[in-house]
Amino acid sequence: MPSNPRAGSPKEISSPSNPHVKELAALRRRRSRQAAGVTLVEGYEELDLALRAGVRPRELYFCPALTGGADPRNVVARAAERGAALYSLSRQAFDKAAYREGPDGWLAVVPDIETDLSRIRVDDRSLFLICESVEKPGNLGSMLRTADAAGVTAVISANPVTDWGNPNVIRASKGTVFAVPIASADSEQVMRWLSDHEVNVVATTPDTDVLMADVDMTGPTAILVGSEKYGLSDRWLRGSHTKAKIPMFGQVDSLNVGVSAALFTYEAVRQRMASGRH
Amino acid sequence: MPSNPRAGSPKEISSPSNPHVKELAALRRRRSRQAAGVTLVEGYEELDLALRAGVRPRELYFCPALTGGADPRNVVARAAERGAALYSLSRQAFDKAAYREGPDGWLAVVPDIETDLSRIRVDDRSLFLICESVEKPGNLGSMLRTADAAGVTAVISANPVTDWGNPNVIRASKGTVFAVPIASADSEQVMRWLSDHEVNVVATTPDTDVLMADVDMTGPTAILVGSEKYGLSDRWLRGSHTKAKIPMFGQVDSLNVGVSAALFTYEAVRQRMASGRH
Repeated sequence: MPSNPRAGSPKEISSPSNPHVKELAALRRRRSRQAAGVTLVEGYEELDLALRAGVRPRELYFCPALTGGADPRNVVARAAERGAALYSLSRQAFDKAAYREGPDGWLAVVPDIETDLSRIRVDDRSLFLICESVEKPGNLGSMLRTADAAGVTAVISANPVTDWGNPNVIRASKGTVFAVPIASADSEQVMRWLSDHEVNVVATTPDTDVLMADVDMTGPTAILVGSEKYGLSDRWLRGSHTKAKIPMFGQVDSLNVGVSAALFTYEAVRQRMASGRH
Repeated sequence: MPSNPRAGSPKEISSPSNPHVKELAALRRRRSRQAAGVTLVEGYEELDLALRAGVRPRELYFCPALTGGADPRNVVARAAERGAALYSLSRQAFDKAAYREGPDGWLAVVPDIETDLSRIRVDDRSLFLICESVEKPGNLGSMLRTADAAGVTAVISANPVTDWGNPNVIRASKGTVFAVPIASADSEQVMRWLSDHEVNVVATTPDTDVLMADVDMTGPTAILVGSEKYGLSDRWLRGSHTKAKIPMFGQVDSLNVGVSAALFTYEAVRQRMASGRH
């Protein structure tokens, strides 16, 4: 007998009007995901990375007509080991359920990502990345990948316009959304939390003479980045301890927000490595 | 009399079957752009930045029904001063010509971007960013923005899969595609060119123990980044003088290619600033 009886026998679904398929399709809506306390991970690579990051899928749907039966990284077995119910879908049923255009035949329902600020712990080496109203899933995903690689303590979304559970964020994050602690709260709350925990707040903005290399980021530090269109709000600029910029030498001087976040984050990492604290 | 007689009197086009409109619509295709030796810049912000970067549009199309007549940065006058023919389009005609979904009413035809490798000059402070087969316009655009800000000598596309004149690259570059010298060539040519000019070639790859901070990038240096899916090819890895990596501490360790390029580029900038050479 296999250790998890579900693993051996995925339930087969051929009809696109099957209730499971309808529920899946409904989860494309943010409201439905929130009501159910779940989110979606679609795509083989994303699922593999989510599993590597420790996610426990509730349900795994795959479509042999699309996957061709290939599962080189044993996603089915790994999901089943963590208690996922398995479903094998017909092409028609999968197309109904899939979120992406050009689906690859893999889709999982996973528990919603915890975003409660009070869960985040602060110590004297903490490094936070705070995004104010960043909009594009690609930028949020890129920042999560950077945060994972750089060993950031948590990524915090202030006044979020795009939720962490957005399937496009999950996809762009390459699974790191499940690996990095994250939180969401309105700006007031985040400011109070930073102040209560005596975190040094560094605002990234071109409107300063201070270079990022000249700001000490070895203590508990929060790096603030603003929205794609407007940068940081006046409220956050006023609420920061230091404003700092990336040295720029160009004609246009326009950095992508994910790139700015990465350059500041890795400047903090460099300072910490130099002082033996990372 | 105004200095440029065209500026005062844009030609009005109301019919979507006007030959100008048809030609514009045809320029969505790479082949048509190449045959005509032009490319497209769409969007007010992009146009403003292209003009700041020195572009001389041949034709400027705008749609008062979409722009509401607003032109706070005087794009019309600036384009006219540089010799652009002006056209005012009806909503119907503009919708036919526009490349984007949700157009903002601004579109220009500009001379194709020069991409000949032989134009690029090398001196002992040169810093090149070389992208092998990078595919996503968003990543190419982000790298151009970084290259502009960091004062990179040129960005060179080796074995390109996406051309620099692709309207999505232009858009993602925020106009920097017109500010930074760029080139395209097959990998053989680029390798020979680098060797002929005695440029130090640094490959970015996680498969090494050398950290980027330990590689001297103060002399003439080329930073190599690979495609989103596969990273650098064996050919380029073998052809480089040094392999180096970004320090990573994560569970998933997955950086966006535009972020990797930026971290390496700014590490070179940091070294050069420290040695008074940037």
